[in-house]
Amino acid sequence: MRIVIAPDSFKGSLTAAEVCAAVEAGVKRAAPNAATVAVPMADGGEGTLDCFLRGAGWREVRMTAADPLGRPVAARYALSADGRSAVVELASASGLPLLAPGELDPLRADTYGTGELIADAVRRGARDVLVCIGGSAGNDGGTGLLRALGVRFTDASGADLPPGGAALARLAAIDDSGLAEEVRAARFRVACDVTNPLVGPRGAAAVFGPQKGATPAQAAELDAALTRFADVLAERTGRRVHDLPGAGAAGGTCGGLVGVLDAEPARGAELVADLMGLPAALDGADLVITGEGRLDGQSAGGKVVSSVAGLAARHGVPVVALAGSVAGPLDELRALGLTAAFSLADGPRTLAELTEGAGALLTALAEEVVRLRLA
Amino acid sequence: MRIVIAPDSFKGSLTAAEVCAAVEAGVKRAAPNAATVAVPMADGGEGTLDCFLRGAGWREVRMTAADPLGRPVAARYALSADGRSAVVELASASGLPLLAPGELDPLRADTYGTGELIADAVRRGARDVLVCIGGSAGNDGGTGLLRALGVRFTDASGADLPPGGAALARLAAIDDSGLAEEVRAARFRVACDVTNPLVGPRGAAAVFGPQKGATPAQAAELDAALTRFADVLAERTGRRVHDLPGAGAAGGTCGGLVGVLDAEPARGAELVADLMGLPAALDGADLVITGEGRLDGQSAGGKVVSSVAGLAARHGVPVVALAGSVAGPLDELRALGLTAAFSLADGPRTLAELTEGAGALLTALAEEVVRLRLA
Repeated sequence: MRIVIAPDSFKGSLTAAEVCAAVEAGVKRAAPNAATVAVPMADGGEGTLDCFLRGAGWREVRMTAADPLGRPVAARYALSADGRSAVVELASASGLPLLAPGELDPLRADTYGTGELIADAVRRGARDVLVCIGGSAGNDGGTGLLRALGVRFTDASGADLPPGGAALARLAAIDDSGLAEEVRAARFRVACDVTNPLVGPRGAAAVFGPQKGATPAQAAELDAALTRFADVLAERTGRRVHDLPGAGAAGGTCGGLVGVLDAEPARGAELVADLMGLPAALDGADLVITGEGRLDGQSAGGKVVSSVAGLAARHGVPVVALAGSVAGPLDELRALGLTAAFSLADGPRTLAELTEGAGALLTALAEEVVRLRLA
Repeated sequence: MRIVIAPDSFKGSLTAAEVCAAVEAGVKRAAPNAATVAVPMADGGEGTLDCFLRGAGWREVRMTAADPLGRPVAARYALSADGRSAVVELASASGLPLLAPGELDPLRADTYGTGELIADAVRRGARDVLVCIGGSAGNDGGTGLLRALGVRFTDASGADLPPGGAALARLAAIDDSGLAEEVRAARFRVACDVTNPLVGPRGAAAVFGPQKGATPAQAAELDAALTRFADVLAERTGRRVHDLPGAGAAGGTCGGLVGVLDAEPARGAELVADLMGLPAALDGADLVITGEGRLDGQSAGGKVVSSVAGLAARHGVPVVALAGSVAGPLDELRALGLTAAFSLADGPRTLAELTEGAGALLTALAEEVVRLRLA
């Protein structure tokens, strides 16, 4: 009997690693001889880096990088034990929370620091880089990140543009001849769960600009600048990222990475599953236990739960979701492959009681689930 | 795939038959072709008669009988379709709630009316009588019931004693020559879940007398009278019921039925299971789903759940309990045979929400349980 435990974190309650430990304790109570494989999961959003760092086989690299306004900030990323894979969170050096409320500057803020982290990882040997985006302070289309890797963005006079999204309005040429060979050889994957295009009324500037401090006029200015960026990219590469679903994520960073580095956008949970080795763990498994804080059947459940359910189904392994709450009909998740879902609530409980008692309740529930399967 | 559904009622929420229907709906969602057998259960206490009357194959017999003070009252019992079995609840004609608060008379109240119901059932052909006791208004040791069947209780002068427990202090002889042949031929089983002896500090009068209106002096008087009753019984039959566990139930009614009619005391839920045909239903079943409103592992769970678990285990069938709440470690229930237990709570919920939503939540939970078993 081999049981794979691949849950998301329970937000506000337990990390994914803690969920794994609680579930594993319950599995062992029901089946002391069962083999368990813990694969803590994340969805590519906040907490993804920590998920890797808490898992086996990843180490943290700490370094100083540029913050969204070019000032030095303590940042970090994760490198696999063999040094071949890296996980970089845009929020670490380029996130909106790095700026004080009075410092918001959506026209000028950029992603240069994230590029420094990636450059460092590639220099250390990483050839498979997962970039987790979201929560960026600027709207630079990832041009800051690309500049840190050696790409030049110049105006009609051939001069380098200043940092930030607004300057892209004067973009005339993109020169990637400065990209290191190792960077060209690397595979870039972008965890991207929004579907917003780069430009237009659902684009990066219009939708996410205001929360970064952009006035309506500034949002329009940034939208025009990103359009110029996309136009020049299209002229140069023949590829239009204007309307690419997801290209608008993180101030257009996803669009820039796709356009210049041929990065592959994908659902964060699926990328995490792949890098964490979940597909291999599923081979020959008898049961998968996944979970998240709140399982909402009507939004196809959590990104982690639906991704794990899909993967498990493709491997022919039954998959059970444990959650703080299970809401709505589960038809969509069942169609993806979910076998069953259970709430860890053991009776009338407040949210606070479930949050505080989640560990013990998960252990108890996992025991019942495994007993029911084994009997 | 054959699934037996044998739950207790969810007190204050759903009858056992309603629980069966809700669970069956969930089973059918998960396994449309599964055969289901609904065996609504009860524990021998309040609601047991209704459980039989709502099940298939039982009919209600209504008649007028004597209330605890000898007045006519509308009473009823259940007769099986073949007329061979009867279920009589002492509460129907002899229950404490039949008296207004000012009418309580523990010295005189008796169980004659219950005997009338039994006599009627036997007259109609019943030879297997389940007597559900508990909640009696008096402390007559079941002598009223026995008188209604033809037994005489006389004083030293040979005169019949007046009704009620107190008069037993003058008991000199018991004459059962008036018992009809059919009554002698019948099997009497008493649903008895308390372990109190007939007399002494844990006996019927001392423990249950006060709630029937007995003062401390009256309780002592009744204890002495019941002791006299037990002494005469012992002289006559050689069997001492003074300390028999459970003999003190219902004002000593259990002790009287055992002493005079050779009745068999047993756990109510086991007797109900037997009369409802649960053992036969378990033959060849693949899964049993039981349940109750509140499953308390530390009291070996509900009487129904533990009895069903034990029966299922003896038939080698896995058994799952569904409950509004699941409390405490389940070790005792597991030792009896319970496979697993789940709460129907789907997240943070108040007791009122769980009570009102119990039907739909049970259906959803049963679906998950069967999906997990089948996958």
